[in-house]
Amino acid sequence: MKPTIKDIAQISGVSITTVSQILNNKGQRFSEETRQRVLKAVKDHDYNPDYFAQNLIKRESKTIGMIVPDVTDLFFSKVIEGVEAYLTQKDYMILLCNSNHSNEMEKDYIKQLLNRSVAGIILASPNSLELETSLQSSPYLLIDRGLNTRNEGNLLVKEYEGGYQSVQYLIDSGHTKIGMLTNELGYYEMTDRYDAYRQCLKDNQITYCPEYIEDGPVTIEGGYEAAKRLLSRTNITALCCGNDQMAIGTYRAAYELGLNIPNDLSVIGFDDLEISSYLNPPLTTVAQPAFEIGYTAATYLFQSIKNPGIKIPNKTFETEFIIRGSTKSVDR
Amino acid sequence: MKPTIKDIAQISGVSITTVSQILNNKGQRFSEETRQRVLKAVKDHDYNPDYFAQNLIKRESKTIGMIVPDVTDLFFSKVIEGVEAYLTQKDYMILLCNSNHSNEMEKDYIKQLLNRSVAGIILASPNSLELETSLQSSPYLLIDRGLNTRNEGNLLVKEYEGGYQSVQYLIDSGHTKIGMLTNELGYYEMTDRYDAYRQCLKDNQITYCPEYIEDGPVTIEGGYEAAKRLLSRTNITALCCGNDQMAIGTYRAAYELGLNIPNDLSVIGFDDLEISSYLNPPLTTVAQPAFEIGYTAATYLFQSIKNPGIKIPNKTFETEFIIRGSTKSVDR
Repeated sequence: MKPTIKDIAQISGVSITTVSQILNNKGQRFSEETRQRVLKAVKDHDYNPDYFAQNLIKRESKTIGMIVPDVTDLFFSKVIEGVEAYLTQKDYMILLCNSNHSNEMEKDYIKQLLNRSVAGIILASPNSLELETSLQSSPYLLIDRGLNTRNEGNLLVKEYEGGYQSVQYLIDSGHTKIGMLTNELGYYEMTDRYDAYRQCLKDNQITYCPEYIEDGPVTIEGGYEAAKRLLSRTNITALCCGNDQMAIGTYRAAYELGLNIPNDLSVIGFDDLEISSYLNPPLTTVAQPAFEIGYTAATYLFQSIKNPGIKIPNKTFETEFIIRGSTKSVDR
Repeated sequence: MKPTIKDIAQISGVSITTVSQILNNKGQRFSEETRQRVLKAVKDHDYNPDYFAQNLIKRESKTIGMIVPDVTDLFFSKVIEGVEAYLTQKDYMILLCNSNHSNEMEKDYIKQLLNRSVAGIILASPNSLELETSLQSSPYLLIDRGLNTRNEGNLLVKEYEGGYQSVQYLIDSGHTKIGMLTNELGYYEMTDRYDAYRQCLKDNQITYCPEYIEDGPVTIEGGYEAAKRLLSRTNITALCCGNDQMAIGTYRAAYELGLNIPNDLSVIGFDDLEISSYLNPPLTTVAQPAFEIGYTAATYLFQSIKNPGIKIPNKTFETEFIIRGSTKSVDR
């Protein structure tokens, strides 16, 4: 049984607070004899002062909370990796919470995390949040695509530019019947990408067809179902998917419908997951830096923890259009 | 600023320990007047007793540490999901650590976790561990394929049976030139699957060819590289991959070498990741229950935390052979 600070206090005949203060070099007011007695008890019983005890004095848990919608999502697991890579250098750790996309669970987790005195919170959320009430007592950072309006700590990705570039590439390759898979209405609003799609068609004098749009959850299965509906009712030659996972689902839908990618259908994703370059054919996509987003979020949160009251910077990440084998030119 | 237990102690004119004890209903030795003074200060200042303060008395952090080799690995993120799903019902949380497969980092993390007084540790590790020294002071559970010998808390999967079944299926489908992708030597030893492969060949009077074996890291890229080497130097008609991620890499290698799956090459994975049924063609594989493994690990660890000294059960999980489109019969 590991000795507790209480054991050390009893052995030394002093209070827990006295032990804490001596171990945190704040015990100047105690006699040298007391100090030595406590330090000897610590050594004899191989006591490691833990963060719980230290925290009473220093108020430093060296822990941050991180809430993600889905820990198995390939994008978010990469963001977590980035957060962890930064924090571990600072001897900070992550309390990880999986919200299953639920706003109710997010609220519960925030409460629990605050009860555990985390130094800060990173909340990756698809939801509109009541930030005033829930998070105010802790430094926090949102990864939410700018869904919740705020002046600081906005980590954004140039989604509009990335989306525009992929549609323009398809048009330049001769496509005019271009479909789009978006998210379900009111959830993870991919407004920027959708706006870019419409604007790009307009700039190229191509009529927008509402029936070329289909939505679904931003998962492999969601993409599969949405693509199956869309490809069954239209004869589009190209499809911009909400993300790479939806594109993977699209591959399956195309396979079942006997459509060859890219000969019958060009497909473009968004994210550039590791797996995407290994798909058959490799996926043309818009890369966004998931690891870097997580790393930056952790950096900013840490700075905000260390310098309470400073304004958290905003940052907009570039995207990169990556052409692979899932897209092909067609004759106009 | 959130009030601390120290603030409440100062406001009430008592020690931190007194506040802790009163809030944990262990303050019977204090006068009713003192109790009321402390409780009033708690209410007036909206103080939420946190786990750090409670922990001094109860020694209960309601937190477990979890170390995984790679948080972005599709198998481990599913295990994490299972662990989290169980623990969140018990109001426990996970301190998540990403070891990058490194034994050094595992040791560091274990030390840090113990310093934070986690109630227990789940360590998913590809390494041989010096368990005696590092983990002894805490309940723990390993997810390590039984790599580290022990009498309790062995969570195993019927890998031999699963491996045997897939090779037998290929032989029954007329294949005799069957290759295998294993892990790098001495790491994640897939001994069971390799033994099953050799035994199954022998039972079917097929000569074992060392050149049909290739190894590499158990990742998409590792599978890609290993498959490229193997498929360039042999004319096998079927390939058993170490896991689904290696199979995904194999798809890419086959694509580059102009080999059609399943017409030129039958491919079998191991894991049954969500993505595997969406591959093109869908992957024939051996399913192992990653979520359930995580959920069970958390259940056993929790029981062991609540009942110190009890023996942690062993459990062996069944596999399921799932036939999809990546395998095909050949004429003998």
